[in-house]
Amino acid sequence: MSFQAAVHAQAIELDRLSLEMTAAAGAGHPTSAMSIGHLVTVLMFSTMRWSPDYPDYPTSDRLVLSEGHAVPAIYAAAAKLGVAVEVDGERRPLRMEDLKTLRDWHSVLDGHPNPAEGFPFFDAATGSLGQGLSVAAGIGIAAKQDGIDRRAYCIIGDGESREGQITEALDFIQDHKLNNVLPIFNCNSFGQAGRVSQQQSAERLVAKLKAAGFNVTEIDGHKPDEIKAAFDAFKALGADATPMAVVAHTVKGWGCPSMQGGAWHGKPATGDALDRALAELDEMRVELTSSLSSADAFEIAPPPEPKTEGEPAADFPTFTEAMRRLDMESVVHTGRYATRKAYGVALRSLGHVSDRIIALDADVSNSTFAETFAKDPALTSRFVECKIAEQNMISVAAGMAASGKIPYCSTFAKFVTRAYDQVEMAINSAANIKIVGSHAGITLASDGPSQMSLPDVSWFRAFTTMRDHRGNPGCYVLQPADAFAAYALTAVMAEYEGLCYMRTLRADTEFLYNDHEVFNLGGFQVLNEGRDLCICASGYMVHEANRAVNKLDEAGISATLVDLYSLPFDADQLMDIIGENNGYVISVEDNYGGGIGSALADAMVASGDGFTLEQMHVKRIPKSARTEREMLEMCGLTAEGIVERAKALLQVV
Amino acid sequence: MSFQAAVHAQAIELDRLSLEMTAAAGAGHPTSAMSIGHLVTVLMFSTMRWSPDYPDYPTSDRLVLSEGHAVPAIYAAAAKLGVAVEVDGERRPLRMEDLKTLRDWHSVLDGHPNPAEGFPFFDAATGSLGQGLSVAAGIGIAAKQDGIDRRAYCIIGDGESREGQITEALDFIQDHKLNNVLPIFNCNSFGQAGRVSQQQSAERLVAKLKAAGFNVTEIDGHKPDEIKAAFDAFKALGADATPMAVVAHTVKGWGCPSMQGGAWHGKPATGDALDRALAELDEMRVELTSSLSSADAFEIAPPPEPKTEGEPAADFPTFTEAMRRLDMESVVHTGRYATRKAYGVALRSLGHVSDRIIALDADVSNSTFAETFAKDPALTSRFVECKIAEQNMISVAAGMAASGKIPYCSTFAKFVTRAYDQVEMAINSAANIKIVGSHAGITLASDGPSQMSLPDVSWFRAFTTMRDHRGNPGCYVLQPADAFAAYALTAVMAEYEGLCYMRTLRADTEFLYNDHEVFNLGGFQVLNEGRDLCICASGYMVHEANRAVNKLDEAGISATLVDLYSLPFDADQLMDIIGENNGYVISVEDNYGGGIGSALADAMVASGDGFTLEQMHVKRIPKSARTEREMLEMCGLTAEGIVERAKALLQVV
Repeated sequence: MSFQAAVHAQAIELDRLSLEMTAAAGAGHPTSAMSIGHLVTVLMFSTMRWSPDYPDYPTSDRLVLSEGHAVPAIYAAAAKLGVAVEVDGERRPLRMEDLKTLRDWHSVLDGHPNPAEGFPFFDAATGSLGQGLSVAAGIGIAAKQDGIDRRAYCIIGDGESREGQITEALDFIQDHKLNNVLPIFNCNSFGQAGRVSQQQSAERLVAKLKAAGFNVTEIDGHKPDEIKAAFDAFKALGADATPMAVVAHTVKGWGCPSMQGGAWHGKPATGDALDRALAELDEMRVELTSSLSSADAFEIAPPPEPKTEGEPAADFPTFTEAMRRLDMESVVHTGRYATRKAYGVALRSLGHVSDRIIALDADVSNSTFAETFAKDPALTSRFVECKIAEQNMISVAAGMAASGKIPYCSTFAKFVTRAYDQVEMAINSAANIKIVGSHAGITLASDGPSQMSLPDVSWFRAFTTMRDHRGNPGCYVLQPADAFAAYALTAVMAEYEGLCYMRTLRADTEFLYNDHEVFNLGGFQVLNEGRDLCICASGYMVHEANRAVNKLDEAGISATLVDLYSLPFDADQLMDIIGENNGYVISVEDNYGGGIGSALADAMVASGDGFTLEQMHVKRIPKSARTEREMLEMCGLTAEGIVERAKALLQVV
Repeated sequence: MSFQAAVHAQAIELDRLSLEMTAAAGAGHPTSAMSIGHLVTVLMFSTMRWSPDYPDYPTSDRLVLSEGHAVPAIYAAAAKLGVAVEVDGERRPLRMEDLKTLRDWHSVLDGHPNPAEGFPFFDAATGSLGQGLSVAAGIGIAAKQDGIDRRAYCIIGDGESREGQITEALDFIQDHKLNNVLPIFNCNSFGQAGRVSQQQSAERLVAKLKAAGFNVTEIDGHKPDEIKAAFDAFKALGADATPMAVVAHTVKGWGCPSMQGGAWHGKPATGDALDRALAELDEMRVELTSSLSSADAFEIAPPPEPKTEGEPAADFPTFTEAMRRLDMESVVHTGRYATRKAYGVALRSLGHVSDRIIALDADVSNSTFAETFAKDPALTSRFVECKIAEQNMISVAAGMAASGKIPYCSTFAKFVTRAYDQVEMAINSAANIKIVGSHAGITLASDGPSQMSLPDVSWFRAFTTMRDHRGNPGCYVLQPADAFAAYALTAVMAEYEGLCYMRTLRADTEFLYNDHEVFNLGGFQVLNEGRDLCICASGYMVHEANRAVNKLDEAGISATLVDLYSLPFDADQLMDIIGENNGYVISVEDNYGGGIGSALADAMVASGDGFTLEQMHVKRIPKSARTEREMLEMCGLTAEGIVERAKALLQVV
């Protein structure tokens, strides 16, 4: 049977299955799936080097479906090929009868690509649009770093290519010459609420891609030979070739004239409409191919053998030792150092301990101190400059994590906000990435609120209140108060499989700890033991609280001081401490509410012990101030303010 | 004096002032400012039609500085022109001596553009990069809608043009033919951590802009005649002309060779370095112009007269009346209707009440029901289709709000996440915008977590814990449980000057209220008065809680039910109700923690009354399920679950 006939037969089969499974689910996007039936067939049955038995094999080619709603086409192909899925922890081939379970509570076939629910064919969850190409770029750059001959294919909807992140990913692919990544634009001309803008027409996309430096091939996305020729050209690219992109003209609801046009987005056909659509597909089959669909008509090339290399055997040095190796031991003797700088030192140390450690930054590595890693000649090849494009940075990291890397992403904590949707998708993907937001809170002072992270603790904390697929908190939020803590926690994050967010500070802060202090996810430090009230602070505010404790002591008030550097924390242990302090608590944080204060409140009311909490946090939109001191005063977050509140709470005049 | 000489003289003066004011502040970005000295001079002293006495006059041309860190150049020009600023509520001209207060706590000259702190020359806060062109597009589209001959100029850094939002804005400008908006790319070749990528080189930017459909003019950004010719060409564009863009080659630290290159980003020159830089500028003055800088050398054309039109006199009808007008009264008799649909009906009613109401949507208007507004022939011109580009949508809305509009922006609540940075900048700008996130929470069920908003309440709640420039909460979060509430709250938002976030639901929910019920920002509804415990729920969960109350009643437990539809809420009043219920509370919400449960916890521990709270919220990453019921069971958020917790709390067997 000819390749062309075999592809048509298989694509029509995938289309039929897409119609049937969405009908069974009572939901889904069959017409989008049908627009990529041929592309998926050529990719999964012929072009990709991979193994259906082991879809996540480390050297396998990967397919990222950025327009996640078109996923029924992939599920259909996976069932035809018996791709391995994970059901109750066991791997078995996906079966044809599984397709009818689409979107069911107990199915591995989620509404959108969701590898953590048992479909390891995918590297990352997609469905929030415009993110897939960055994930593919992450897979591509990891393969280049590892010297693996591996390719990442990414199907992108024309409508979703409006998302700016797509252009961020395209620029990234050019910057890093990722000619092992193939963006495939599926131009079916229809979005949800109407036609796709002329700005995302095939013609404009071709022009834009060329302007961005791509070698562009325009094809009919339903002509097997054109598809194959384009993909073959991509596979034949030399090591230094210009990155390539494919723009495919497709038909939404291909094969079923009754479902074409704008009216059928996201709607399954049922009853008579389904019968009519299936009949139309049968007519199409008769017209295009005499073949029956068969996986045997194709040959799938297996992935190459993985390389096995031992890890370097270096130990993780103490902070003091790491500083000594950088000829900066004298700094340790000054007694103060910024947590952001300690992060850079720790990241460099980690880089020597494990090849898996990667540093990504968004044009501010000299502020976040990721440059301490980047400038080390032994590590510089593992530094990934992402330029001013935070969304792409986080999704690239998710792709790299899926390739076995441990990516640390840094930028100003404020600018991480840009990528919150990507961060959440990374959590849904069970991605092992670490995010480090520098210049956290208000003490960067003079730049003003456009550079300050204020609702960030509240947002990340939401993930600490739930459990991920592994039974762990969806995220750990870490706020080291000094350089020793920042150094230690940077390493602690690497030991943990999952997402962490660490806030670092612009200011040089005084040392509170030493090389021997142990820091844990979920832990806290008691810096002073008192009996009258308990002050819980985070990050920079631990230092103000420390000053307050001394002033309170002079006033005859004995305060406990807790450095609450982790969310979540061990609530039982902390409630005991609060109980020993008459149940009086003051929380102090340099962000808007919803952070450690609310975490304490949540724990306190669960018991009903009648504990009292006074929350000190930023309660106005800050503006510029020239000094940290003025900024703290503007926001009422000084040691003096804490003392005042403590006296009021204890009703001491 | 020739125009050329006058521009050079003035630009050099602005450069000098930029150096001096950043030196005084001890921080800032003089070299970035110096790269735009000539562009700013031509714009503010010659090209723009505006009035320094009244920079925010409704018909004035506007300048949006997207690369906000270059702001010293604007401040310098404003001081030379005596632009009105607001100090302690009074307007007065900016004075030369004010420049030395840059970044001071009490100064109107914030570190980045920050109009809410007293510098009304700007329409919106910038400094988080890549957002300004969208703001300018919002100003442009509002002017087109109002038939005002007004232009928006936007200066964009080459480095920041990596942000995908810039391309979203470019596509938006093309879609809406906004030839009254001029994107000016400032190509000085240096970012913070190194050279700007080749992908953002002037050459590539020109190619990309052309591919996106722009008429591009490339100029030397330090040659007055080239600048003027480009701006004159823009002003001469006919009504149907293709939108235009300018790519300006500039020098970072122009005029001061000692500060050029990559080393001086974000650093003020002080001491000898400052003296040397000032001397270099003096040499440049001698070389280029014999003129002294003088604002008198220029003539600034005033803005046109504003149009005065009366508002249409329609009343806001009741929900039932609005449905009758849409021939949908029969739906009211079914007793159930989705809150997202009621939002559409309300928005349409509001559109007839006020010309200022605008609806924006991101390609999902048939899901959010913004289409009910869009499809009304009398309103359709005020519907702005933003396609799949949420970041641009929110910043466009901020620009429209600055033009006096009341923009309602809708998309899935999950996809609003994409624009959180833009939302925060809108709050910092005191922008009067309303954001409506549909398909909130988990009850959209089968699409799975990539479409679900889960940490959103926690994020928006952070802004409810602080006060904005007007002394109001930074945001109100609204979660209507039925169609009457959604209808009423949509109108309540319009009455309020500030940012609101409303969550609407996919499912048709039963009516709980009627046309006479009153809803307020900060309010709540007591749906059942009990005495044993108080259940506080939001949105969809009010219905589960309602079922639970009936079941508890059968079991002899008398529960109070509070529909906590607003954050913040009247805490004192609610604490009284809780006190009357023995201090036992259960909160029920369909999102991760940090939402209404934490808001209750915050209020409860402030008093130390010993109240006990059991928080029910989503505590796992959801996956697809086919029905709302299955989804609620998966997340343990059913009426039966509430009953169980209530019994455990009250220790009833």
